[in-house]
Amino acid sequence: MANKKTAITPQRSQDFAAWYQQVIMAADLAEHSSSRGSMVIKPWGYGIWEIIQKQLDQRFKDTGHENAYFPLLIPIKLLEKEASHIDGFAQECAVVTHSRLTSTQEGKLAPASPLEEPYVVRPTSEAIIGETYAKWVHSYRDLPILINQWANVVRWEMRTRFFVRTSEFLWQEGHTVHATAEEAQEETTAMLSLYSDFVSDYLAIPTISGTKTPDERFPGAVETYCIEALMQDGKALQAGTSHFLGQIFAKAYNIRFQNQQGEQQHAWTTSWGVSTRLIGGMIMTHSDDDGLVLPPKVAPKHIVIQPILRNTNQDKDILKYCHILKESLSSLHYAKEPLRVHVDQRSIRPGEKNWQHIKRGVPIRIEIGPKELKEQTVSFARRDNRTHTKTTLPQAAFLRAITEELSALHTYLIDKARTFLSTHLHSFHSLEETENFLASGGKGFIYLPWCKDAIGHEFLAKHKLSPRCIPLKPQNIPHQHNPDAKCAFSHQKASHSVLFAKAY
Amino acid sequence: MANKKTAITPQRSQDFAAWYQQVIMAADLAEHSSSRGSMVIKPWGYGIWEIIQKQLDQRFKDTGHENAYFPLLIPIKLLEKEASHIDGFAQECAVVTHSRLTSTQEGKLAPASPLEEPYVVRPTSEAIIGETYAKWVHSYRDLPILINQWANVVRWEMRTRFFVRTSEFLWQEGHTVHATAEEAQEETTAMLSLYSDFVSDYLAIPTISGTKTPDERFPGAVETYCIEALMQDGKALQAGTSHFLGQIFAKAYNIRFQNQQGEQQHAWTTSWGVSTRLIGGMIMTHSDDDGLVLPPKVAPKHIVIQPILRNTNQDKDILKYCHILKESLSSLHYAKEPLRVHVDQRSIRPGEKNWQHIKRGVPIRIEIGPKELKEQTVSFARRDNRTHTKTTLPQAAFLRAITEELSALHTYLIDKARTFLSTHLHSFHSLEETENFLASGGKGFIYLPWCKDAIGHEFLAKHKLSPRCIPLKPQNIPHQHNPDAKCAFSHQKASHSVLFAKAY
Repeated sequence: MANKKTAITPQRSQDFAAWYQQVIMAADLAEHSSSRGSMVIKPWGYGIWEIIQKQLDQRFKDTGHENAYFPLLIPIKLLEKEASHIDGFAQECAVVTHSRLTSTQEGKLAPASPLEEPYVVRPTSEAIIGETYAKWVHSYRDLPILINQWANVVRWEMRTRFFVRTSEFLWQEGHTVHATAEEAQEETTAMLSLYSDFVSDYLAIPTISGTKTPDERFPGAVETYCIEALMQDGKALQAGTSHFLGQIFAKAYNIRFQNQQGEQQHAWTTSWGVSTRLIGGMIMTHSDDDGLVLPPKVAPKHIVIQPILRNTNQDKDILKYCHILKESLSSLHYAKEPLRVHVDQRSIRPGEKNWQHIKRGVPIRIEIGPKELKEQTVSFARRDNRTHTKTTLPQAAFLRAITEELSALHTYLIDKARTFLSTHLHSFHSLEETENFLASGGKGFIYLPWCKDAIGHEFLAKHKLSPRCIPLKPQNIPHQHNPDAKCAFSHQKASHSVLFAKAY
Repeated sequence: MANKKTAITPQRSQDFAAWYQQVIMAADLAEHSSSRGSMVIKPWGYGIWEIIQKQLDQRFKDTGHENAYFPLLIPIKLLEKEASHIDGFAQECAVVTHSRLTSTQEGKLAPASPLEEPYVVRPTSEAIIGETYAKWVHSYRDLPILINQWANVVRWEMRTRFFVRTSEFLWQEGHTVHATAEEAQEETTAMLSLYSDFVSDYLAIPTISGTKTPDERFPGAVETYCIEALMQDGKALQAGTSHFLGQIFAKAYNIRFQNQQGEQQHAWTTSWGVSTRLIGGMIMTHSDDDGLVLPPKVAPKHIVIQPILRNTNQDKDILKYCHILKESLSSLHYAKEPLRVHVDQRSIRPGEKNWQHIKRGVPIRIEIGPKELKEQTVSFARRDNRTHTKTTLPQAAFLRAITEELSALHTYLIDKARTFLSTHLHSFHSLEETENFLASGGKGFIYLPWCKDAIGHEFLAKHKLSPRCIPLKPQNIPHQHNPDAKCAFSHQKASHSVLFAKAY
């Protein structure tokens, strides 16, 4: 059995938030910094982001998008052009007001040279990109514009949490311009599907796709599409969004073109993004009381080989065997990538080393000692084996089995997460049912008929629930929306049913 | 002959700075933004940066480095810890002083919620990384730390120039920690060599490696190594730097470790970086009066295929032929990458289209019309063919020749640049010789014996010269430093010889 002294304290069931933070520390993913609300992303954590970036970037390019780069600092007057947009971001902006530091008499540094026009560090880039696109678009021949940007953004968050909510975070933001509403709509939903597929295929996170209710839309959007995931504590996490912006930003920034009939008209735009938040969602979906569990496709190392050395003459041969095994493994592929293999020959206690790799979520841990050397075998454990006991196979058999083991780990994780999601998704018709469910410790998504946005906020606030989305495919919900249903709040005719949940 | 109406105006010889700007506009690499001093990097320009990133990143990883990410916003008090460092950057910092925007009575936005402690947008990251490393380093077992960061930085530049000097720019910054001075020194020079090799292999830019004279060192460095390139106008461009920081930052940020003898000591650190400036250097090294010339390894597309369509039944077959040719080409490799091929079937005038691709520096342009279809041939031109006339080869022969054509283009560019560098590198012994040279219109590097940093500034300022470096391999300089040489300025014994130049 697992050595409990080495596991994560507290356990998930005791204090989920503290457990989450300890998993991150133990896995060496990130740490706090002296820059308020921003974290340092350490190599193991950044390695996961690099894989996410590479895979998403390829999918964006395969669907006709190109990358570009727009300025970090946005002149305030540009933001003034779209009122609802700035209302959504004005409360949490890093504002640049000076262009120099000067030394005070006490030997401290202080801002100097005030700027005539302040700038904000981009919280998102619709404004500066909208202004730029207005210069690029003249004719229908210039459309569509399909551009993505990999960037850092800053939103001055008061309550932060590693990966899930930090003042600075890394993300990608797609910004496209189209000649027709239909084409922009298609782009919006196509990118949502791309996100949903990627998150499921790579992070093993099942999500529910839907549209946001009006109050929850991106500031300035006509429609916000989202994918919502469910964490192990029963709270929802918005994992990605795709916005149909209609002609709102085109009108604010004057993105106009001459159509095929020779008439001037405003264009239709979209924007869509995912961020380092995905890593937080992955941790809270899969990790266990022994630490991080990595879906193998995003593991910076698929396999760690641990030589068991005893300061004897045999050590040299054991190390040689390890490195030959690494070579053999590196020539194999999983999910179209060569296997990423590391030989960890640091001279620390084997048990401690093994636990480090368990906590870092390495999918496959191998031990090679005198016995494996003699018998030309491989002893290994898969991260989802909770007793952490190793299986021994002849080397050739292991090499034949390894990519299947990685696939099986992915399947295990996505299946477990799907089961969790489906068993934590409840349809109710009344507030009484909902309250009984919550009072008995029920958690997860709650599906309720609703009549309109203004209704029910008191009830929701009392139970810390928020509307997550109106599902795009209600047929996947156990009790789908009944056209004759009555709103659970007002008892008027319900226009649709909405998924509610406590959320990050 | 080239149609002069379509070439770049002005020519290089008329106004190099204006020509440079026009080349960038015509190639669609970048444009000005409303964010003062920052540019928008457009897809064709960003595509070049992506290739530079990918190649450098692989070289960093192959030499044992990992990527991580540190905060954008640096608390001012962190900067106060290293006086010479902050002296170098305090004059040009974007300072964040507020965390919110509020609407004024006139409907404008204004900064609100002043911060107790202001932040600067990172101009470089030694401070925040130094503080972090102090937490990571305890024992010699924790060393070396070999980390790189891909990031944006802001330096509030007064006079900006596309790619070469912008307020915000993209770069990588390596930051390493070592147990000994020797190991840190080795890292510093190894990274300089990596830069020098990459810039020559990929950007076809020959450089001179050297150390900066004391006044020109990075603020806080013990020694700054650099690679210096020579642009076609005879001005030098610093293309990359690698800094041996000694124990200066380790002492400022308290990076200490217990060595093998059980004693506490300060570590030794390095930092090194290259930026989007490399793209500016590449443009000013290779481009001509017809526009951008791209070294093929960094061309976002190696080849553009232009179908010549005449609105006849044949058009379908011509397009089919183009796409089959694209498939065949895409299966070939150059510099270990699949050929990047684009079929440009926009319906614009063929001559105009052809000139767009000339100006964008596409290495190989192909035309496929009825004749090529009928004879199953390929008509193509290499970008360095100044008459832009096309050669026709049977398809099979073209496919056999194409990677050799790309190699030959690279060789042509690096050879031409090397010849330019060697014919613009002059050794003099006196100021009189130097002045005569300059008065007669001479340009390029000037190698002069020097006794110390404080000498000669009036002369240098008068001629707008600056010390570029003390070459590491003076044997490559036509007249190497003579140990008995007298300083050209003071006539005292010279300690070394220095390369001077007008510079970007």
